[in-house]
Amino acid sequence: MKLYDAAWAPSPRRVRVYLAEKGIDVPRETVDLLSGEHLGQAYLAVNPRGIVPALELDSGEVICESAAICRYFEALHPDPPLFGTTPEQIGRIESWTRRVENDGYLAAVHVFRNSVPALKEHALAGAMPAAPQIPELATRGAVMWNAFVEGLNGWLDGRDWIADDDFSFADITALVTVDFARAARLRVPDRAEHLQRWYAAARARPSAAA
Amino acid sequence: MKLYDAAWAPSPRRVRVYLAEKGIDVPRETVDLLSGEHLGQAYLAVNPRGIVPALELDSGEVICESAAICRYFEALHPDPPLFGTTPEQIGRIESWTRRVENDGYLAAVHVFRNSVPALKEHALAGAMPAAPQIPELATRGAVMWNAFVEGLNGWLDGRDWIADDDFSFADITALVTVDFARAARLRVPDRAEHLQRWYAAARARPSAAA
Repeated sequence: MKLYDAAWAPSPRRVRVYLAEKGIDVPRETVDLLSGEHLGQAYLAVNPRGIVPALELDSGEVICESAAICRYFEALHPDPPLFGTTPEQIGRIESWTRRVENDGYLAAVHVFRNSVPALKEHALAGAMPAAPQIPELATRGAVMWNAFVEGLNGWLDGRDWIADDDFSFADITALVTVDFARAARLRVPDRAEHLQRWYAAARARPSAAA
Repeated sequence: MKLYDAAWAPSPRRVRVYLAEKGIDVPRETVDLLSGEHLGQAYLAVNPRGIVPALELDSGEVICESAAICRYFEALHPDPPLFGTTPEQIGRIESWTRRVENDGYLAAVHVFRNSVPALKEHALAGAMPAAPQIPELATRGAVMWNAFVEGLNGWLDGRDWIADDDFSFADITALVTVDFARAARLRVPDRAEHLQRWYAAARARPSAAA
């Protein structure tokens, strides 16, 4: 088994934080995004979409998508559960994971990929066709981010973690999102006190260093 | 328990197709999107994000997001499994579900919400802030759609279903995506013969009428 990993990028980090929380050790190979290794022949043979992470099983099968890789490991190693165990927990953890992805992570992606000078003609990730940046989409992403921060901050009033009493995959997703958003110059403002408290607690966990 | 449903829209349909495949009957209340009922006080008290579907449990808790609602029911009623049972099946069904969502569904959303005249100042769904359409994003969505169709068509060469030997949640997601894409004038071209064969098989299932 081999995990194709990459420095800095949010999706590979989501898997690393998950594995650290579970205490699972997986052999890794780092793909160098800066030199374009993810778009080279060797990696495209692993994942034709040219995106990281990817998990190569001993059978040769490759599982892509960070959430799918984590769910694969969750099925192999159920404890401690990070996707919930009761139907209610499972539903609410998935619901909040999706909300963080669709409202927060996508907002940061819109800003980052449509404003960073190095991606001027490559606003779509991986092996997708070349796509010019759309400045208006970066603007829209900032609007989405503010709505996301406000909504999540209000929700966290009186709650330790996002989806359940315990830390879950929804918290991992939000931690990775907030840190990635800094690269797009999107912040959690000081006035978002509940979200700030949650963030301090999440990044204090040893897994946050993964 | 009550499912807040809506006619025509893709996410409510994803839940309906799933429930039909499982043979689960849930009391439903239809929210009228055309008259803006999803943005009225009564529905915003159920789901402050103003998007459908939402599942209200007997406890009063509300689970949003179509995938989360389906996972809640999957935990309650595991058979027939639509999210897989082995770690490998679970991983590959989630992987393909995500890929269909990120490459295909998002492409159709980009085109639809940024080109339909009625949404001129409301390119973001639900209770998000008003956002003007971005014509360039509709153009980008069409590029994404073509790449999605080409990739999925090649993958389906020699395969009956998308993620596994059996019909799964990934197929439900793709069926709903292909049908929704028609509203954005995005089609599966005749030359995409494997995807066409898959589509004919998927829409021939009784659940497709849900």
